Formats: sequence, structure tokens, C-alpha cells
Amino acid sequence: MQFTAAQIALMIQGTVEGNPAAAVAGFGKIEEATADQIAFLSNPKYEEWLYQSAASIIIVNEALELKQSVSATLIRVPDAYSAFAILLSKYQEIVSQQMVGIQEPSFIAKTAKLGESIFVAAFCYVGEQVVIGNNVKLYPGVVIGDGTVIGDNVILHAGVKIYHQCVIGNRVIIHAGTVVGGDGFGFAPLADGSYSKIPQIGNVIIEDDVEIGSNTTIDRATMGSTIIHKGSKLDNLIQVAHNVEIGSNTVIAAQAGISGSAKVGNGVMIGGQVGTAGHIIIADGSKIAGQTGVTKSIKIPNKSHNGTPAQEFTSSLRMQALTRSLPEMEKRIRELEKTIQQLLADKVQG
Amino acid sequence: MQFTAAQIALMIQGTVEGNPAAAVAGFGKIEEATADQIAFLSNPKYEEWLYQSAASIIIVNEALELKQSVSATLIRVPDAYSAFAILLSKYQEIVSQQMVGIQEPSFIAKTAKLGESIFVAAFCYVGEQVVIGNNVKLYPGVVIGDGTVIGDNVILHAGVKIYHQCVIGNRVIIHAGTVVGGDGFGFAPLADGSYSKIPQIGNVIIEDDVEIGSNTTIDRATMGSTIIHKGSKLDNLIQVAHNVEIGSNTVIAAQAGISGSAKVGNGVMIGGQVGTAGHIIIADGSKIAGQTGVTKSIKIPNKSHNGTPAQEFTSSLRMQALTRSLPEMEKRIRELEKTIQQLLADKVQG
Amino acid sequence: MQFTAAQIALMIQGTVEGNPAAAVAGFGKIEEATADQIAFLSNPKYEEWLYQSAASIIIVNEALELKQSVSATLIRVPDAYSAFAILLSKYQEIVSQQMVGIQEPSFIAKTAKLGESIFVAAFCYVGEQVVIGNNVKLYPGVVIGDGTVIGDNVILHAGVKIYHQCVIGNRVIIHAGTVVGGDGFGFAPLADGSYSKIPQIGNVIIEDDVEIGSNTTIDRATMGSTIIHKGSKLDNLIQVAHNVEIGSNTVIAAQAGISGSAKVGNGVMIGGQVGTAGHIIIADGSKIAGQTGVTKSIKIPNKSHNGTPAQEFTSSLRMQALTRSLPEMEKRIRELEKTIQQLLADKVQG
Repeated sequence: MQFTAAQIALMIQGTVEGNPAAAVAGFGKIEEATADQIAFLSNPKYEEWLYQSAASIIIVNEALELKQSVSATLIRVPDAYSAFAILLSKYQEIVSQQMVGIQEPSFIAKTAKLGESIFVAAFCYVGEQVVIGNNVKLYPGVVIGDGTVIGDNVILHAGVKIYHQCVIGNRVIIHAGTVVGGDGFGFAPLADGSYSKIPQIGNVIIEDDVEIGSNTTIDRATMGSTIIHKGSKLDNLIQVAHNVEIGSNTVIAAQAGISGSAKVGNGVMIGGQVGTAGHIIIADGSKIAGQTGVTKSIKIPNKSHNGTPAQEFTSSLRMQALTRSLPEMEKRIRELEKTIQQLLADKVQG
Repeated sequence: MQFTAAQIALMIQGTVEGNPAAAVAGFGKIEEATADQIAFLSNPKYEEWLYQSAASIIIVNEALELKQSVSATLIRVPDAYSAFAILLSKYQEIVSQQMVGIQEPSFIAKTAKLGESIFVAAFCYVGEQVVIGNNVKLYPGVVIGDGTVIGDNVILHAGVKIYHQCVIGNRVIIHAGTVVGGDGFGFAPLADGSYSKIPQIGNVIIEDDVEIGSNTTIDRATMGSTIIHKGSKLDNLIQVAHNVEIGSNTVIAAQAGISGSAKVGNGVMIGGQVGTAGHIIIADGSKIAGQTGVTKSIKIPNKSHNGTPAQEFTSSLRMQALTRSLPEMEKRIRELEKTIQQLLADKVQG
Repeated sequence: MQFTAAQIALMIQGTVEGNPAAAVAGFGKIEEATADQIAFLSNPKYEEWLYQSAASIIIVNEALELKQSVSATLIRVPDAYSAFAILLSKYQEIVSQQMVGIQEPSFIAKTAKLGESIFVAAFCYVGEQVVIGNNVKLYPGVVIGDGTVIGDNVILHAGVKIYHQCVIGNRVIIHAGTVVGGDGFGFAPLADGSYSKIPQIGNVIIEDDVEIGSNTTIDRATMGSTIIHKGSKLDNLIQVAHNVEIGSNTVIAAQAGISGSAKVGNGVMIGGQVGTAGHIIIADGSKIAGQTGVTKSIKIPNKSHNGTPAQEFTSSLRMQALTRSLPEMEKRIRELEKTIQQLLADKVQG
């Protein structure tokens, strides 16, 4: 796929300086690019490369004043760095739209229903009665269990595993290795100290526009559904236990863990490695700092919390300051003791 | 597979009210069910649906008094909700027993020995000299390394990866993406600051009736075995390092990490995100609260611990209370200082 | 593959006692070994097995004095235990060198370039324009995205997933289920409370001699590269966020998380479950204890830190001691109050 300087200038709203028909087929760093690539110059430190680069097209800042003649065609934009990023991103989109079709070997049950313009990479497994929407992309090794329903424009990266009977909304992105719908951690203790498994017969519902990172785990509900509402974003290696409900537009950083039946509100921000107790609620707009242990419900919305057990941010900061003043406090007590000792001695003598 | 109201009533010990020959082939919610499905009514709030539902069979509470005539056949039970759950669970069992055979493409080494009535999904990989027991189910993308031995009635979910020479007992369940038998984290520092890998030539032994969640990692021993004893249950995203030994009927919640050569006793409960130092022991019956950092051995059995470094629960609670009383203590010191100041001033004046 | 006692003695620098032509094809425990296996005796407690074992060759300590005649051929070495380990390790190397070829079914894009003597297991996926060096081993289910470059002598274990355009150096080992190059966690908040995805167009660079554990996640940079420098070792379930840079010969234990754009120095040791804030630096030679929360840059090299927020080890130990002395401090305040009370009462009476 080739693009001309004129086409690219249109895509990034720039001005061509040189040959508008100059054409490239890929991206390169200015110091390494070949004749069929486009490069950019943002940092003036590397300006010398502009005059030596083999790239046919180079994106530069509007403000740049040339010190020598340049063989490449230039595209001038307000910010060369971000224009290059936008271009890369648009290119990825175009490439991705061209990824269509079913690679072999793949396993697609006869009772599965597939939408239009989907891409199924080799080694994907689509179970019985699965429904997949339009423009869905399944990267290599994706496994979709029986009866699961996937919306439109969903991207499941390599090795994503979704168990049976789950529901995935539209425009959901799930990164590699994430597991959706594994059994919740439910066991009933028996008299002899052993445990009996409680069947986990619910499912997981992930609503529209949710993005989930790599190697995260979201367990199916014991009964009913574990739900992640519209627009929420989860990072890598997060644990979402059975029957958890996460509100809309909530953001959870890596390695956080939400225990069973906890209910996280809308617009919440949860830092990395946070843990919550089960069966609690976290009010809308709460901000939980990294490594916090939330042991009780947070009922007042829009407050910041940290520490284990979690406290509101201001009282926790005051407590930290006091803890840090412990050596000073101990010294003050010692001095008081000395003074009293002296007073008592004086009194006896007196 | 169709079931009649009479058959279902037998399975959940209920009483048929209507046509015992009414038959269904699947499950539905009362408000959405079609004529070939069974539904249930538990919450009286939804009673109106009972009279409108298209479901051919509906499970209801014994106590329910009908306010209108119902077209569906009813099955009355003490608790409709749990009867429905039991039915679903029995149905899953029946369906799962029917999952037998080897799907293509799969890769099974010629020297592997396979038991009877096993299910091997597409894209599973069974290495050289692997031994697999009877009634084992391998979901898509399971990888079993050379020489590993798997017992009877084991379920390995999608993408479970077991390295070479490991031993898995009977009735073990391992959820998607979990890795068993990866190299322990062992490196010897060299004089130039770099590290040399210590070969990890041991294995992992997982005994009968153990269940392990999704994306957990259990490393092989440097020499000898990392062992998880009978009946223990591990949640998702847990780290079990090399040469760890976990007792029987011990329960470990998500994202906990057990460091190398630690020895966890029987009947222990470990909360989410707990971390332990290496080479320590945790006595039988210990209860470790979430996010605790166990830095030393816990030698007295049946005690509760929390905090980092871990303390017995009562002393840790007292410490938390005292920490919270710091502002009060500081105030008391200030007042003492004032009084003494006054006393001294009086004395000088006196 | 058979080895004689003479050959084995050469490999472990031992002395043969018995028939140098005695040959074995595998390893066994002394109490279970069959005639075609080699075993070892290290612990004198098990010496009786020496006289009963069916093993054809047994490795023993130089110092051992026989109490009966032995049918097996002996190989005497200074330390039988470590000699057996070395032998196993050398054997694994030989076996592994014999793993060569491409198993079917696998998916290798036509534009991929493969080095010599590589092993590609069944169900591996090699994308467009991927470059793979010599002596590389891909275990089952490895996925390599378009344009990624892999050096020589690399081992990628089962189910490793590397996204597009990443760079992996020589002699890198990555364990099962690890994900390299997933999108960084970058979202721009919009006025309506929802989030818009920031394209992650950078990559991941992993330099020579790095080893990474199982189910770890290393995100690609927003722009530029997430970099792990030469010789560093990462354990299981670690999170490395976008644009992080990790120095040379740095060791990170399981479940640690390094936030976006943090820069970890050379020769750093990071304990399990440590978390760091984003955009900080950690100086060369720092030692960070398990579960520490590093909230600010650590600028002085070669210091130990722990706690959340992280403190230098000595001040943190002093603080812990003081916190533990809180009950004592409270008592001292109470006594001071009593004494003063008495003094004041005396004064009034006086």
C-alpha cells in the first residue's frame, strides 16, 4: 500500500514542500529510513539528519528554517511529532480494516453465527451457538466458549479466553491472555475440613466501549452476572471476582483486585495493586490511591482514600505526619519526665 | 436433548402441576423464555411474568398462590431459585459427560498414553510420554509438556500450560491460562554484576481434589517438588514459587504470593494480595488477612494475622487503635508541657 | 539416547567403579529406578537402597564406604547431589538441542524470515515480516505479531504472546503465558466523563540475556520504546507499564508493578508485590523490600527501602520500633499526668 505526499498531507492537515507525487510504503526513523519510507524531524538536535536522510518524505515543524537543500519532499505541520503519531495511528486503522477473513486452521462450530467483515486468525476456537457481530477481529488462539455473544467492532487479542454463556458489548477491546468467565472462587466448608465446590452458573457481561488489559481475570457470577458497565477501562493483571459490578467510565490500574460481590460506582479511579473487601460499595467518583486496602464501604462520593485499612486522604496524610513525628514526641516525653524528676527532687530537698 | 416436566421434577424433588409430558430443551429467564425452555419464578415482584411467559415449564415456590390461570406446567419446590441452580448444575454435568472425543486439529505425541472417555479439544498439545487418566477434559489450547502425568477426572480449561515432568492428581480442576511448572526464579550473582541461571530440574506435584483459578503461576522446584496437597483451593493470579509446599484443604485468595521454599500448613486461609517471605512456615489453621506481609514464620497454629510486617490480629488491632489515638496523645503532651511551664514559672516567682 | 558410565563420568568428572560400559537411557530415584536408569545416593539415610536398587548406574559421594556388595556400576564424585543436578541439566541441554524443525499445524506468514536450527511447535503463529534468529525455540501456541524481530538462541515457552513491531535480543528466555507489547494504559478523559483511547504506537525492546517469568505483562510504549536492558531477570505476574525503562542486571520478584514511564536503574533488586508510582526514577543498586510502595524517586544509589510510602530501611526500622513502643509511650504520658496532678494538688494543699 503506497501513499503520496499529497495524500499524507491531507491526512495530517500539512503543507507539501517539494514533489506532491513522492510516494512511500512504510515508516522509518530519520537516521535509518530507506527511500520508500516516511520519517519525521521534531527535535532540532537531529536536524543534520534532515539533509542526509534517504527517506522520500519527511514531516517537519512549520517553524523549521532550512540550512541546506533537502532532497526529500517535506510536509510542514505545527507539531511534527504528534502529526507522525496521528499518521501511524491512521495507518494502523487502515491496515486493521483490511484484516478480514478466516485463517486456517481454525475451529468454528457449525452452530456459531458469524457477522460480516470479521477476521478470525489461525488457532481460534469458536464454540457451539456463539454469536459474533460485524467487524470483529479475533487474533490467534482466541477461545470463545459455547453460547457466548460478542457485539460489533470487538477486538480480542491473542489468547483471550472467554468461557461459555458470556456477553460482550460493542467496540470492546480485550488484550492478550485475559480470561473472562472462569468460575468464581466459591467453596463450602465441610465437617471434615475439606471443601465442596459451589457451582458457578452465572456469567459475565461486559458492556460497550470497555477496554481490558493483558492477563486480567474476570470471574463469572455464582448466579446472575458479573458486570462491567459501559466505557470502563481495566489495566493488566487485575482480578475481578464473582458477582462484582463495576460502574460506567471507571478506571482501574494494574494488579488491583476487586473481591466478590463488591459494587464499584461510576467514574471511580482505582490505583495499582489496590485490594477491596467483598460485599462493599465504593461510591461514584471515588479516587483510591495505589496499594490501598479498602476494608469497608466508601459511601460518600468523590473523596480520595489511601492506606490499609483505607482512610480519607486528608486524615491519612495527617496520620502519616504524626507517625513521622513519633521520634520528636518520644523526646518531648523524655524531657517532661526529666523536668518532673527535677521538680520532685527540688520539692523533697525544699 | 429434551427433558419432560416429570423427569425434571424427579431431579429437583418437586411436584408437577400441569402436564407431566411437557418438554423443554434449554433454560431461559421468565420474561424472555421461549416455548422449548424452562424458567423459574422466585421473587414475587416478577409474578406478573408467570401469567405471560412463553416457557413451557416454570419452577415456582411451594408457597406461591396463583392469582390467574397459567398456561405453563409448574414444578413446585421449597425454594425455586436454588432448585433452578441445582438443575442447571446437573444439566452442565450431563452435557460435560457427553463431551468426549478428540477434536481436530490437535497434537498428540505418539508416545502419549490416553485414558478412556477423554475429551481433547482442538489446538491441544500433548507431549511425549504424557500419561492422561480416564474422563479427563482438555479445553482448547491446553499444552502438556513431555512426561507429565495427569490423573482421572481432571479438567484443564482453555490455554492451561503444564511444563514437562509434572504430576497432577485426580479430580483436579485448573482454570484458563494458568501455568504449572515454569522455571523457579533462581539466579546466582556473578562477580561482574550479571546473573547466571540456576537450572530448575525439579517439578510440580498437585494432589487430588485441588482447584486452581485462572492465570495463576506455580513454579517447578529447583530440585525435588513444589507440592500442593490434597483438597486445597487456589484463586486467580496467585504466585507459588519454587519448592513451596502447601498443605491440605488450604484456601488462598486471588493475587497472593508465596515465596520460595515457604511451607504453608493444612487448613490455612490466606487472603487476597497477601505476600510471604521465602523459607518460612505458616502453621496449620492460620488465618492471614488480605494484603498482609508475612515476614517471619507463624509457628502457633489457628491464629489470625494481618499488617506488614504481619502481627497477630489482636495486637495489630490495638496498634491500629493507638496509631489512631496519636493526635490525642500529642495534645496530652502539649498540655503537660504547658502545665510544667506554669509550675516552673510559679516556682521561680514563688 | 543411551549413555555409558564412562561417558557420564566424563561429563561430571567422576570415577567409575564397576563396568564402564554399563548404559542407561533415563533418570530415576534410587528407590524406584529401573535397569535402564541412572540414580544417585546423597543422604546416608537412604544407603540401604544402594544395595537393592535396580538402577544400572548410581552416582555416590567419594567418601562413601560400602557395607555390602553393589550390583550397579558406581560413579564417585565429591558431591553426588550436585553432580546429578549437573547431569540432568546437561541432558536437558542435549535434548533441547535436538528439538529442531517445524511441527504441524503451525502458521508461518510467507514474509517471515526464519533462522537456522529453529524449533517451531504445533499451533505457533508467526506473523508477517517477522524475523527469527538461529537456534530459536518456540513452544506450542506462541504468537509473534507482524514485524517483530527475535534474536538468536531465544526460548519462548508455551503461549507467549508478543505483539507487532517488538524487538527481542539474543539468549532471551520468556516463560509461558507472558504478554509482551500489549497497549499501554492510556486514555484521555472527555468532557462527558468518558475516556478516549490514546493510540499506543511505540514498541517493547528486550535486550540480550533477559529472562522473564510466566504470565507477566510488558506494555508497549505510547511512543518510543518500553525497554528492558541486558541481563535483567523478571519473575512471574509482573506488570511493566508503557515507556518504563529497566536497567541492566536488575532483578524483579513476582507480582511487582512498575508504573508508566518509571526508570529503574542498573543492578536494582525489587521484591515481590512492590509497586512504584509513574514517572519516578530508582537509582542504581537500590534494594526495595517486598510490598513496598515507592511513591517518589529514589535518587541516592545503593540504599535499601521499604514501607508505603517507601522510606530508607534504617529510618523505617526505627519508625517500626517506635510504633511498636506506642503502648509504652502512652503509659509514660499517663504517669506524667498523674504525677503532675499530684504536684498540683500538693501545691494547692501546700
